[in-house]
Amino acid sequence: MHITILGGAGFLGRKVAARLAADGTLGGQPVSSLTLFDLAAPPSPSGARFPVHSLAGDLADLPAAAIPPGTGVVFHLAAVVSAAAEADYELGRRVNVRGTDAVIDACHRLASPPRVVFTSSVASFSGGQGAVLPDDARQVPANTYGAQKAAAELFLADASRRGMLDAVSIRLPTVIVRPGRPNKAASSFVSAILREPLLGLPATLPVPDDFAVWVCSPRRAVEWLLHAASMDTSAKGIGAMGLDRGINPPGISATVGEMLQALDSVRPGASALVERRPDPAVAAIVGGWPAAFAPVRAKALGFTAHESLADLVQAFIDDDLENTRDERNANN
Amino acid sequence: MHITILGGAGFLGRKVAARLAADGTLGGQPVSSLTLFDLAAPPSPSGARFPVHSLAGDLADLPAAAIPPGTGVVFHLAAVVSAAAEADYELGRRVNVRGTDAVIDACHRLASPPRVVFTSSVASFSGGQGAVLPDDARQVPANTYGAQKAAAELFLADASRRGMLDAVSIRLPTVIVRPGRPNKAASSFVSAILREPLLGLPATLPVPDDFAVWVCSPRRAVEWLLHAASMDTSAKGIGAMGLDRGINPPGISATVGEMLQALDSVRPGASALVERRPDPAVAAIVGGWPAAFAPVRAKALGFTAHESLADLVQAFIDDDLENTRDERNANN
Repeated sequence: MHITILGGAGFLGRKVAARLAADGTLGGQPVSSLTLFDLAAPPSPSGARFPVHSLAGDLADLPAAAIPPGTGVVFHLAAVVSAAAEADYELGRRVNVRGTDAVIDACHRLASPPRVVFTSSVASFSGGQGAVLPDDARQVPANTYGAQKAAAELFLADASRRGMLDAVSIRLPTVIVRPGRPNKAASSFVSAILREPLLGLPATLPVPDDFAVWVCSPRRAVEWLLHAASMDTSAKGIGAMGLDRGINPPGISATVGEMLQALDSVRPGASALVERRPDPAVAAIVGGWPAAFAPVRAKALGFTAHESLADLVQAFIDDDLENTRDERNANN
Repeated sequence: MHITILGGAGFLGRKVAARLAADGTLGGQPVSSLTLFDLAAPPSPSGARFPVHSLAGDLADLPAAAIPPGTGVVFHLAAVVSAAAEADYELGRRVNVRGTDAVIDACHRLASPPRVVFTSSVASFSGGQGAVLPDDARQVPANTYGAQKAAAELFLADASRRGMLDAVSIRLPTVIVRPGRPNKAASSFVSAILREPLLGLPATLPVPDDFAVWVCSPRRAVEWLLHAASMDTSAKGIGAMGLDRGINPPGISATVGEMLQALDSVRPGASALVERRPDPAVAAIVGGWPAAFAPVRAKALGFTAHESLADLVQAFIDDDLENTRDERNANN
């Protein structure tokens, strides 16, 4: 089976590629070859026992080689993310909407419809701190990124109904702990308050300790993406996919205080490096995102439950802390 | 105030133009000029006391003159409708999605954001005969037209939040009685069983008498569009527009049997021209559409309640029956 990862140079794209290289299979089927596509040619995962093709290009002008004949699974992870889509409307539309249309057209040209695993986002909802969103919650985005993701979900669901492809859209929670530096994304602090203290560096917390966020770990996100790539979308009964190809996966609703407790349980005293400095502007943005979901359908469809916050912190130490420190040192 | 009607040659576009010509005002403000745009140059309404410009073109390649500087209101009624969008995916995407993007871009170029009144559709929902959809029902379309309309709603809501325009999207029920001939649209029979007997012609009914449809009259649809063009979208409190610019207007849920009773109350014995001929294929399509809504928000926002079915039948006789008969005779 040939597999393509669009956005193969990104944080999750690299982790999915590494996992495919390590496993050599997906859903019990051998991986015959892998194509990685991104703005710059993505690095090949180490240890792959199948050919890996690396391509650079513009998603909206997708080259035919990105989704070649015989492709069985497309991971569509390429996106202009929230702050960038808000700052540049046309760029967000070009990549998040036209790009998804290009993916649909490329899949439609194949002899048989491939599975498309699409990363949608919690940002396609609103609701705020008090919300616990059911599976059939209406997507009322409060940002351009979320609106474009919700529209892309509609197009992928319709293309699935028409038999052009077979999509599963996963509305990812805020993924923590992200490697890299603090950035201008409003959600940047959620990773920073765990990552920076583990690097021995200070971090600032712009919201109160009882502020809740719907989160997941990179490990869990990768597990869900791999499950979405191989699950049976034609099953009937409870949780059947049917017309609605969007999944709210079983993340966890955690307060900032709980995250800092988990940090201290793994690295005692580390949370002392976190300084409370309220920022009403950041609080206003992230305060609009729903802090909790009731993901009944995802569990019926076999998406695995989330590990504890302490396990999430330990996984960052095991998987990404060393690389993050090396990159910081190399750039300083 | 300058007004533009995109889809100005269509059934509702012509009725809105005629009403603006008759009134000379919209929401208490004088109409200074009107631009009508469609694939073929639309006819000017008779009696207008303001200049009317008629333009032909492709919505996705919208000429600047279609939405000129100073435009205060855009009625965006242009669409590739359900059967056509299902038959030709690319055509539907070009007009219903790219076309709406072109409208957003044209509005964004204006000095101040115009009101955009967009006709979305009940086809953007599913649910079937048993459903009574609340205002926050999730749009899970079972057809390409509905998916494209729901996506266009998302783009218009986001553009409203960004201040590029100020949209109100009205999800129109099945509009009856349509003039013209029976056609291949699955919903064609709903108008035909009233229109054809009033012309003294036979009609066939493909569903049982207790089959319910969410309907509205052309008169009520025009009233709603005019209200949407002039209502206060910034009001707070119950029913405030906020982020969600889509409105489920107060149509009526009527069974076919109730429609035929209303027909007989206006034209005794007319329903005898309706022949029951069950068609499982038609029943399967229209059976997926929701038959009822609970439109609480629309009423709070000032959208007027629907008249009786008998009034709906009488209005067709008063407004459209003569023209329909003349067109049939001219074409025979």
